[in-house]
Amino acid sequence: MPEAPLPTLPPGLSDEEQDRFFLGLAVEQARIGWEEGGVPIGAALVHDGRVLAVGRNRRVQMGSSIRHGETDCIERAGRQPASVYRHSVLYTTLSPCYMCAGTALLYDVPRIVIGENRSFQASEDLLRSHGVQVDVLDDPECIELMRRMIAERPALWNEDIGEE
Amino acid sequence: MPEAPLPTLPPGLSDEEQDRFFLGLAVEQARIGWEEGGVPIGAALVHDGRVLAVGRNRRVQMGSSIRHGETDCIERAGRQPASVYRHSVLYTTLSPCYMCAGTALLYDVPRIVIGENRSFQASEDLLRSHGVQVDVLDDPECIELMRRMIAERPALWNEDIGEE
Repeated sequence: MPEAPLPTLPPGLSDEEQDRFFLGLAVEQARIGWEEGGVPIGAALVHDGRVLAVGRNRRVQMGSSIRHGETDCIERAGRQPASVYRHSVLYTTLSPCYMCAGTALLYDVPRIVIGENRSFQASEDLLRSHGVQVDVLDDPECIELMRRMIAERPALWNEDIGEE
Repeated sequence: MPEAPLPTLPPGLSDEEQDRFFLGLAVEQARIGWEEGGVPIGAALVHDGRVLAVGRNRRVQMGSSIRHGETDCIERAGRQPASVYRHSVLYTTLSPCYMCAGTALLYDVPRIVIGENRSFQASEDLLRSHGVQVDVLDDPECIELMRRMIAERPALWNEDIGEE
């Protein structure tokens, strides 16, 4: 199924508004994933203000154990030179697990903007210890998506984070 | 293209021979990857002596930025319950990058057997600090595969580890 074309940043936004705009793309992906019966976590990879890719958790949709929101997004961005990752920002609706954090470390992504970390948090100290700028927006939509996920699909959620 | 059926452990092997056998499956995957024009790193995921999956780096073959040997292997094992990962061993021809180490941490894989860590090493301290048993076999075939890779396909290798 063809994906929608990648959105473009509207002109004239402040830095904070830009972060909210890009996080909004990740939230949209999370919502799509929820409607598909999956885990509602989404991501966007942005290079110098340009969206390289959006992605979402595809555990259910692809039967995948490695397609979290962030890794799916990075995969969809295709093979990029190191210099691109090193000047990119990764937006994600939920604080990254170790796999997704490790992917950001592999590629030296310098900044990660997180929708929320109340529902899950594992890797932020690791990321910061490697010099990654981690900004948590504490976004109500992201919190609500995960609240519903954990309440309504608890077994799927546990599977996604490797819990019994 | 259908893959070969998963091999079975021959009876009567010592623990060390079993490790060499499973590492051999990872080496075989690495060799296939090299012949395909890719990055010669392979892996095998083994649960209670049974091979769940083998995998190899598919950067070239699938245009993938997230299919390292270990992640490809875990993906090919399919969606497994947490209890399976927690009693599995991950064999890999080369010391894992942060993405692959993070994947093992996400799923609480308790032991990783590494062919060699002379060509690359990033995550072993992190893994050990989380209680993962990391055993390095210093295997000459693994070393030779990576020596040839770095000599003959240096740009591809740098891309694979996020270097300029």
